[in-house]
Order: sequence, then C-alpha cells, then structure tokens
Amino acid sequence: MAEFSTTSGIPVATIKYYLREKLLPAGESETANQASYGAAHLDRLRLIRALIDVGGLSVVSARSVLEAIDSNASLPEAFKVAQRSVSAAIEPGDLEPADLASIDALLEGWHVSPENPGRLAAARVLSAFRGVGQTDERGWYARYAEAALLIAAADLDEIQSRPDRAAKAETVVVGTVLGDALISALRRAAQEHVTSQRYS
Amino acid sequence: MAEFSTTSGIPVATIKYYLREKLLPAGESETANQASYGAAHLDRLRLIRALIDVGGLSVVSARSVLEAIDSNASLPEAFKVAQRSVSAAIEPGDLEPADLASIDALLEGWHVSPENPGRLAAARVLSAFRGVGQTDERGWYARYAEAALLIAAADLDEIQSRPDRAAKAETVVVGTVLGDALISALRRAAQEHVTSQRYS
Repeated sequence: MAEFSTTSGIPVATIKYYLREKLLPAGESETANQASYGAAHLDRLRLIRALIDVGGLSVVSARSVLEAIDSNASLPEAFKVAQRSVSAAIEPGDLEPADLASIDALLEGWHVSPENPGRLAAARVLSAFRGVGQTDERGWYARYAEAALLIAAADLDEIQSRPDRAAKAETVVVGTVLGDALISALRRAAQEHVTSQRYS
Repeated sequence: MAEFSTTSGIPVATIKYYLREKLLPAGESETANQASYGAAHLDRLRLIRALIDVGGLSVVSARSVLEAIDSNASLPEAFKVAQRSVSAAIEPGDLEPADLASIDALLEGWHVSPENPGRLAAARVLSAFRGVGQTDERGWYARYAEAALLIAAADLDEIQSRPDRAAKAETVVVGTVLGDALISALRRAAQEHVTSQRYS
C-alpha cells in the first residue's frame, strides 16, 4: 500500500477511501497485512482521479461509470450512465411545454429519447436565452446543433477504433466526462482567434 | 419594491441582496421610502438570474460581467471578462511543458494569446486524456477544434447582428456563460442520435 501510494503519488488515506467506496478493487492479498497492487490498479487509480479532479464527478457518480466500464453494458447503455453522471437532474415537468417544443424543433429528425438529459438541459438553456431576450437571428442554435453532431461523430469514431468492449466503454466514459471541458476550452481559444480575425 | 418582487417573481430579500452587491442599480427614488423600478431593472434582474442560476456564476463573477456590459469595453475586452468568469484559474506554471506543446500544436495557425483561459484549460484536459491512456487515433482532438471554430463563428455572427455596443456586449456575456451548457447538452442529444444510427 505504501509503495502503491509512492508510485501513484496519491496519499494512502485517499487510496483507502477509494477502496472502502469500492471505486478501486482490493489488491491481491499476499499476507494478512499485505496486498499487491499492479498496473491495472494504477490505471484505475489514474482514471478515478481524472474523473473526479478534472471531470468534477462525485464519488457516487464515479462509481456508477466505473461499474458501467466493468459490466457487460452495451455502448448505448454505457453512454446513458456516463451522460447521467455529468447532467443536472432536470425533470420534463420542470420545463414549460414551449421550451420542450423549441428544442424538439431544433432536433427535428434526430433520434433522441424524451428523457435524454441533453434534450432537457438544452431546453432549459433555450428558455434562459429567451428569458433574457436573446434570439438566434443568424441561426445560432442550429449551428450549435450542427457542431454537436460533428463532435458526437468524432466521439463515436474514436470509440470504434478501440480494440475491445472494455476499452470502448472506457472511452465512452472518459470522452463524455472530460469532452465537455475540452470543447468549452477550445471554444474560448476559437473565440479569441475568430474575434482577432474580424476585429483587427 | 414589493411590486417589483411580485412582477419579477424574485423575493424582496434577494432583490435587496443584489442591490447591496451592486449587481442591480438602485431604483429611482420617489420618496424617502419608495423607489421605482422600470423595465430596464426587470431586464437586468432576469439577466442576473440567468447568469447565476443557469450559468452557475458567483455573485462576484456576475458583477464583473455586468460591469463589462455597462462599460465602454471593446468586444475583445468583453470576451476576456466573460471568459475569465467561467474559467477555472489555471496558471501556465500548473502545466507541464508537454501539455502546452500539445495544445499549441492543435491550435497551430490560430491567433490565441498564451494566457487565454481556454488554451490553458484545454492543455489540462489533454493532459488528463493522456494520463488515462486515451489517444486520438481518428483525429478526435482536431475534430473538436474544428467544431469549436464553427461554434465561435456562430457566436460572432450572432453578436454582429445585435444593434449596438451594449446589446453586442450582452450577447458576448450571455453566449459565453450559457453557451457552454448549450453545446454540452446538444452533444448528449447528438451522441444518442449518432449511436442509434450506427448501432441499431
């Protein structure tokens, strides 16, 4: 355990916490007081830290997505679990019918279930835009939807390139949890670039 | 004040808090105990709620972006303030040179300043991806960067359609603060759509 902590750079107390919370599987027992932690444990520990520290997941959400990786869940199932882990709990009843109608018009032709957390969250954002008087004179929202399709296609292509189900599910989870931060970050860099092109 | 609270649906205590924190300008004094709040106050109150409730801004960050709207700040300046309000404070020194080299390679040809919060946040995400063994076999990150350019162009087109500097600055702020939530939400809907197309 002390060695595992040194190798990983994660304090022993944190590792024990992850073991107790069943995020990390127990090491192989060697004696009553010793267990060995191998490369798979180290990989899992790094994944836990990325999900919690960079992705902002709670321990409970991190456990759910790790279970989805370790289970025989299909990719659509893994997506559902990963999406729920990063989405605010919004119920259709929390939204005005007009908000849902706006988002459904925007996503016309898409195969999206009514309870998809993205559909509900997008309806909430469109409602907020409308509430502050913003409009999409130049197709703002539709162009976001087009960009979202490109991102999702990139996600799926990357997932398909992974060698087996477990690796695919891990990319589903990591991509869903960390991908939001990547696109938001790149958007800020792109805003500076496009602004400087237009206003210089 | 009581009437303003009824019209807006926001409790008097909350309105007083926003007045005290200088998010909301004082009403026009009519008598020593009465002030009048007009349409501009109501619009501002709705904007404050959207920034805080949907955008997740702190009161301090909300005040900064409102000041940017009300000032004579140029659009690039308004973008800077808005971007800072939604970005984690990451210092270049917090990142490995290899992380910065990766992001700079991805953004080659873009006009992005070294301290752009998106550049630093993207470097951090790429570092997290690498730390958990993820790679971009199918151009994952480059395709995100392309999507980010489309989003930024949509943002700028929408901003340019607004009639005056104040309206443009307001769209910069609202778009920067709420746009992340919109693209993340649409990405989840798009993931379900693209998955169902490929795996059905």
